[in-house]
Amino acid sequence: VNDDEGTRLEELAREECLHLLRDQSYVGRLGFVADDRPLVLPVNYMVDGDSVVFSTMVGTKLSALSSGTRVAFEIDEHHALYHAGWSVLVQGTAREVTDPGELARLRRGPLRSWARGAREHWVRISIDEISGRRLPGV
Amino acid sequence: VNDDEGTRLEELAREECLHLLRDQSYVGRLGFVADDRPLVLPVNYMVDGDSVVFSTMVGTKLSALSSGTRVAFEIDEHHALYHAGWSVLVQGTAREVTDPGELARLRRGPLRSWARGAREHWVRISIDEISGRRLPGV
Repeated sequence: VNDDEGTRLEELAREECLHLLRDQSYVGRLGFVADDRPLVLPVNYMVDGDSVVFSTMVGTKLSALSSGTRVAFEIDEHHALYHAGWSVLVQGTAREVTDPGELARLRRGPLRSWARGAREHWVRISIDEISGRRLPGV
Repeated sequence: VNDDEGTRLEELAREECLHLLRDQSYVGRLGFVADDRPLVLPVNYMVDGDSVVFSTMVGTKLSALSSGTRVAFEIDEHHALYHAGWSVLVQGTAREVTDPGELARLRRGPLRSWARGAREHWVRISIDEISGRRLPGV
């Protein structure tokens, strides 16, 4: 299916987007607005239930995300040789994880923030919408 | 230099950020706001003079960027094995390239949008601010 006239871009089905998000990537880019300016920052993440979670340090721009902030979360992969690639975009809202039991469970889990220290926030992003595109190789 | 308390993140100097942007990446993620919602979409790009340029198809979300829209542009690289990586963030404004001579020059240039067809827009992003971070391997 050609989504964009004149291009080779194919829309990905929702299930394929979820598969790529769960199993095929571990670093994504969070897009949000701070002080009226868009920002994009990389985070390592995991899918937990029906949302994306990551941890970040106190005092960073990511930790300034307030509850209910609208965010975008993007993952992609690309191959220069074949001019091919795919990307998945999640749109949702962020909220800090504050429940002690949930925090304890996340800290025991497989996600280890690469930059993590003692004073970390955990943030959960709802997957309100998910879409993806693939550019097949030439 | 530890920028974030308790982490191993190092701030990159401006010159290093510009080097990474010019020579070490070819796909970046554009962050912007459309209909009050943040979006992050990948584009292949090049640095042209003192700005970032990319082409996109008519009718896509990227082509809806209006002149003067504030954007973020992010590149990164990461290594799972060493829990290491770097990222560079550009903040600036977008404007469509409309000058015929400039368009002709860009079309003759090295950048070939992977999804490019006959009806493309060219967009230029000013590099108003640039910053970067490196997470050295463990």
